[in-house]
Amino acid sequence: MNNDIILLGYGSGGTLSHRLLDELIIPTLSGVAEREQNDSAILAHGGGRLAFTTDGYVVDPIFFSGGNIGDLAINGTVNDLAMVGAKPLAVAVAFILEEGLALAEFRKILEAMRAAADLAGVRIVTGDTKVVPRGKGDKIFITTSGIGVFAHALEISGGGAQVGDKILINGPVGDHGLAVLAGREGLELETDIRSDSAPLNHLVGALLDEFGDAVHVLRDPTRGGVATTLKEIARQSQVGIRLDETALPINPAVAGACALLGLDPLYVANEGKLLALVAPEAADALLEQMRRHPQGQGAALIGEVTAGPPGQVQLHTSIGGRRAIEMLAGEQLPRIC
Amino acid sequence: MNNDIILLGYGSGGTLSHRLLDELIIPTLSGVAEREQNDSAILAHGGGRLAFTTDGYVVDPIFFSGGNIGDLAINGTVNDLAMVGAKPLAVAVAFILEEGLALAEFRKILEAMRAAADLAGVRIVTGDTKVVPRGKGDKIFITTSGIGVFAHALEISGGGAQVGDKILINGPVGDHGLAVLAGREGLELETDIRSDSAPLNHLVGALLDEFGDAVHVLRDPTRGGVATTLKEIARQSQVGIRLDETALPINPAVAGACALLGLDPLYVANEGKLLALVAPEAADALLEQMRRHPQGQGAALIGEVTAGPPGQVQLHTSIGGRRAIEMLAGEQLPRIC
Repeated sequence: MNNDIILLGYGSGGTLSHRLLDELIIPTLSGVAEREQNDSAILAHGGGRLAFTTDGYVVDPIFFSGGNIGDLAINGTVNDLAMVGAKPLAVAVAFILEEGLALAEFRKILEAMRAAADLAGVRIVTGDTKVVPRGKGDKIFITTSGIGVFAHALEISGGGAQVGDKILINGPVGDHGLAVLAGREGLELETDIRSDSAPLNHLVGALLDEFGDAVHVLRDPTRGGVATTLKEIARQSQVGIRLDETALPINPAVAGACALLGLDPLYVANEGKLLALVAPEAADALLEQMRRHPQGQGAALIGEVTAGPPGQVQLHTSIGGRRAIEMLAGEQLPRIC
Repeated sequence: MNNDIILLGYGSGGTLSHRLLDELIIPTLSGVAEREQNDSAILAHGGGRLAFTTDGYVVDPIFFSGGNIGDLAINGTVNDLAMVGAKPLAVAVAFILEEGLALAEFRKILEAMRAAADLAGVRIVTGDTKVVPRGKGDKIFITTSGIGVFAHALEISGGGAQVGDKILINGPVGDHGLAVLAGREGLELETDIRSDSAPLNHLVGALLDEFGDAVHVLRDPTRGGVATTLKEIARQSQVGIRLDETALPINPAVAGACALLGLDPLYVANEGKLLALVAPEAADALLEQMRRHPQGQGAALIGEVTAGPPGQVQLHTSIGGRRAIEMLAGEQLPRIC
């Protein structure tokens, strides 16, 4: 916070985002020193619990291979609820439109939102629309908020990792980030990379119904990618994490594009992926069930929770080396979601 | 919807906003023809009810006499919950920051949000921060979402007006709109007009505790002003409304500035005002109680619900004339909230 202005990197999801939150936003807004680091807040209500989450979407471009800002916004909020084990009850949408946005484009985005909500089985119940003059926005920003309810008493949290837990991912990484990058003006990647944007609530529901409290942590590796998310979990749970590079699923086209562009796929954003940290005795059966689900066909076991050092993530590389993984520093891909 | 692009007027809260909602957003998003026109959605949950609302704030300038975009965003969401009779349980905030925003300004906004939340007695429980490059946003946009709970079984809705109901307002109109306008670059109004931005949940709670089902409709006349809001209620309840111009409270400075600028105060936005449509036998006592509350000292009885024609609002003017009131057409004051 040495700089006196907002930098692009404050929106990265990585180190700068954490500093902005920890040093300015959280202490000023809430007056509490410690913040909950989960994807949704948990509220006590009527003897039960509710999950509550909000996310702004400013992705550029607004249309990309495999989706657009509309389904991304719905999936992102549905997934933030799913990552604490909640089922989506209702979603609210707030649009900030730039004067001059084509109604045909807006309609296409609305249609994608409707389809995504239908797929997730959630209703869009309320909303708001503001318009800003040309040059004061960028086509369309969408903020989606969601309320989730619990079918069980499980407490799924980034703080729940236990030594020995196996780390599963439901499919290959990096597709969303690369699809957005490929769609961005001025970049021409000759690939068929498509965003993995998808709702994960049905997959999570199936896993929790079957495996219950064997599921300790769920987290979707969006901004900042798998590396930043694992680092967050390691800190929150005060455990070590070992990540096996060779086990990490990645589509060849994504790997190739990352190599070409000098991007580390570990830091690239995903929008239909989850990391599940699960009890070791249940890991094989969980992996099998994941693979039978449409959202988990490419699932893999990619690492495990170790005794330490607490807060550290070690990458075991393909050539047998080891290196410490840190959070995304600065901004790798601005406006990826 | 003859134009093929988004116009500024689509964000006015008036006729164009209604058309965008009714002809594009609602049918595409929800597939239902009729929309709920209340300030919050009501959700059935666990045998009870929850209120859920979201609003984007894009006010320009972000600082103005009597408040800033931060407390405005909190008050707006608290009030949207209050207008269906709910108590705020939790608020979520999503920031879209423009690269280059001064951290000192951001801090001042966060402090105002905290103070507003404390005043309303609601917790900010979760949030999100995105950053867009310079020239792709405008300093800061804030979307606030809120969950409300019910202490009673009252159904307060824009559809609940009954013939004979008295129409109360809790104080003078137009202050917020004029304060924002006065603060806008290039306009120098030599006045001490301050925004009326304030939380109304305590006032509403007190009225409902005391008068219960004598309160039929609550609505805050924000974008589009008192005129547009009354027109919405008249349509939603399928009743007529008579509004007495001479009874409408307005601060002299606001009246003067409106005259100077050619603005009709009936259409100017408020942020700490509510219209209450109440059973006639309770109106006097309700008005007295309103006036004893800090947020209702300037309360007045400004009209009543008539048998018809349904959906029409008639203004009885100070010189004894009558004219039909329509919704705000086009855009009177862009980015007022």
